[in-house]
Amino acid sequence: MISRRAFLGGFAAAAVAPGRIGLRAQTSVPRVDAQRLRERIETLSTFGRPAGGAFADGVSRIAYSDADVGGRRYVTGLMKAAGLQPRIDPAGNIFARREGMSAQLQPILFGSHIDSVPSGGNFDGDLGSLSALGALEALAAGGVRTRHPLEMVIWAHEESYAFGRGLACSRIVAGDVNPSDMDEVWNGLRRADAIRRIGGDPDRILEARRAKGSHHCYIELHIEQGGTLERAAIPVGVVEGIVAIDRYEAIITGFANHSGTTPLAERHDALLAGAHVTVAVRDAATRLPGRQVATVGHIEVSPNSANVIPGLVHLSIELRDLEPRTLVAMMNDIRARARDIASTTGTTIEFRELARAAPAVATPEVQSAIERAASSLDLHSTRLPSGAGHDAQMMALLGPMGMIFVPSVGGVSHSPKELTRWDDCARGADVLLRTVLEMDRVA
Amino acid sequence: MISRRAFLGGFAAAAVAPGRIGLRAQTSVPRVDAQRLRERIETLSTFGRPAGGAFADGVSRIAYSDADVGGRRYVTGLMKAAGLQPRIDPAGNIFARREGMSAQLQPILFGSHIDSVPSGGNFDGDLGSLSALGALEALAAGGVRTRHPLEMVIWAHEESYAFGRGLACSRIVAGDVNPSDMDEVWNGLRRADAIRRIGGDPDRILEARRAKGSHHCYIELHIEQGGTLERAAIPVGVVEGIVAIDRYEAIITGFANHSGTTPLAERHDALLAGAHVTVAVRDAATRLPGRQVATVGHIEVSPNSANVIPGLVHLSIELRDLEPRTLVAMMNDIRARARDIASTTGTTIEFRELARAAPAVATPEVQSAIERAASSLDLHSTRLPSGAGHDAQMMALLGPMGMIFVPSVGGVSHSPKELTRWDDCARGADVLLRTVLEMDRVA
Repeated sequence: MISRRAFLGGFAAAAVAPGRIGLRAQTSVPRVDAQRLRERIETLSTFGRPAGGAFADGVSRIAYSDADVGGRRYVTGLMKAAGLQPRIDPAGNIFARREGMSAQLQPILFGSHIDSVPSGGNFDGDLGSLSALGALEALAAGGVRTRHPLEMVIWAHEESYAFGRGLACSRIVAGDVNPSDMDEVWNGLRRADAIRRIGGDPDRILEARRAKGSHHCYIELHIEQGGTLERAAIPVGVVEGIVAIDRYEAIITGFANHSGTTPLAERHDALLAGAHVTVAVRDAATRLPGRQVATVGHIEVSPNSANVIPGLVHLSIELRDLEPRTLVAMMNDIRARARDIASTTGTTIEFRELARAAPAVATPEVQSAIERAASSLDLHSTRLPSGAGHDAQMMALLGPMGMIFVPSVGGVSHSPKELTRWDDCARGADVLLRTVLEMDRVA
Repeated sequence: MISRRAFLGGFAAAAVAPGRIGLRAQTSVPRVDAQRLRERIETLSTFGRPAGGAFADGVSRIAYSDADVGGRRYVTGLMKAAGLQPRIDPAGNIFARREGMSAQLQPILFGSHIDSVPSGGNFDGDLGSLSALGALEALAAGGVRTRHPLEMVIWAHEESYAFGRGLACSRIVAGDVNPSDMDEVWNGLRRADAIRRIGGDPDRILEARRAKGSHHCYIELHIEQGGTLERAAIPVGVVEGIVAIDRYEAIITGFANHSGTTPLAERHDALLAGAHVTVAVRDAATRLPGRQVATVGHIEVSPNSANVIPGLVHLSIELRDLEPRTLVAMMNDIRARARDIASTTGTTIEFRELARAAPAVATPEVQSAIERAASSLDLHSTRLPSGAGHDAQMMALLGPMGMIFVPSVGGVSHSPKELTRWDDCARGADVLLRTVLEMDRVA
């Protein structure tokens, strides 16, 4: 035990319950039911599946959509069947708690999300959400009692599609919320009404906030969504941190006119300017050394008719890197290029900052606990950054945080082709369960 | 009269009715009621006006929309009030006939359309349609009898937005129709049902065809939609011909993936490729000498989410010139560039031909008649090509055709800012009326 305690670093020394021994030697540590996990992921995939499609056709379970509401109902049903009492907080997040031996200790929080991007995959979020439930069931079935209360969570509205912003409801829990946010409108839907649709209470939105230190730690199992683990043939990733993400909207104003009667020299073509900006965004990322990425993923064109020169274009610019200064350098490059583009195309180009997410460092003690959990299952692990944003970065604002990654085949995600092998899903769920137990040993 | 007959070129010599004299000298030629024309254009503008908007905010009267159905009902109501008996043909075109003195002669057909592009203007089509009605009313009020029957027409679905194709219903009249076309689907709407919505009869669609020579000639008054007349300060344009238009769709297939976890080198970004294609389309037009134009006006991106690398892009390519070989040269250039773009972006790019419209030459005799009509009103006129497509090019397949243009302020069209001064509207309506009378003098 001494050597294991030495891993705990800055944490208070572990107060180990009498009679407990290390996980590797402890043959009685239960396993998450892998078959049931698979069946649930498959059933959840039907909420938002394209008409006439199969599992491999992916899912569009946009936050607040009918598919999202249906998927949430399915999962809360599973939670109730497992003897849990799901509670929906005012932001729409689903929580369920299993009491521990000590009423003085804060809960260990773990979970993920089940909303998806349009035409997304069936593992992003779903795996971590259903594994959290599977871990609670396995502990109950195995009669394992923990010192800390355990609390699973299914975050609402993680993906940045609805209302153009992601991590929306963990953000509220982390305290970044204003009652006036509820007046925001997206696709004709008021945010207050959206949150009501999933059982939240926008009138009490501030009560969704949780205090710093109100949980012992936060743990999230997730698919990598990149190809690092698969290429290295390593089943478990220990996340070092989550990259910073800056999001902007470019608003390009030209002049809508007839495509047949307006000479090229007299045009103010907002889409031609948007095409040049799209190329400039890519160039801004490739010009610098490093692993930063830049993406134009969304574009809206008005009037968007084949025989009208586009008068107005909105496009999204998303920049990601572990180093925030790199994001600033890329955006400065894009702004400089945009000035030339506006001048040559006879348009005006404005940039609106939509969101800036700071990088989030995973707590070293939780990283160590994940490594010990993997090791106890004879699984290799490696540390790596997360290029994707996760609710975990919001929880990092409130206390210790760590994330477990499992391999994504081909590094594909946010796509119907997203795939994590069922064996890797099962391994991830077991690492999650054991990481919870490892962290339970820490005061 | 001799000099006037000399203008008629290949036409049979005019059989002038006894007692009729040249229009200039004929002081009793009635005028179209300019005030009523203006009021009707203003009232028609309310069908499809943006909520809370004004006349200057333009109109979205997409073919087959509720706004289109409402606008058509308004105009047929005006026709009935004028003592006409509007008839809707199986394609949805509205016709109304005023008998002439000779039952042996074919009708003089004239009119335009009232559907619009999204966020279009209030003069494109509307002016010619309501002026045709105004001309019939003026002739009735003035007691003028013509030798030929007169027939006004309001073409359905002129703009190429609905079902991605324009001149759709005059095309049917010209014979370019197959009963299976009625199964086409656009925005979830079957074409047969669309045509039923406006009072057509898709089951009898072939009966909408008219025979070659079934009308004496076709005349259309329209706004120029370009800036030539305004820059030259000439109130009347005599159209020499309508440019050829080729339309293609580019289908760019990449691979949708997570924008945070996919390194730039591993991306297959369909929107980045689409941006390069958009630039290539413009370059194809500017590289050649001449007045040809090329436009990307419409783009659809899937999944169109800020945090997903776009996997699929459809974009429109529209090429226009009086010389069809120029269109072929531009498209060859675009195809060659696309091969390089596909290679560097890791995408595939296919082109689908949507439509090819041959150029249409206006009949010299009708051009001359328009010039005489303008001259009889002491209005200068000039000949010019039409960069825009018009139903007149379909009617050119069936018989003599001519078009009258009036100035567009700033050359703006297919935009809410589209404007033709009321004086110019009135002048155009009177030139239309007199062109009808000029052509009536021709056997």
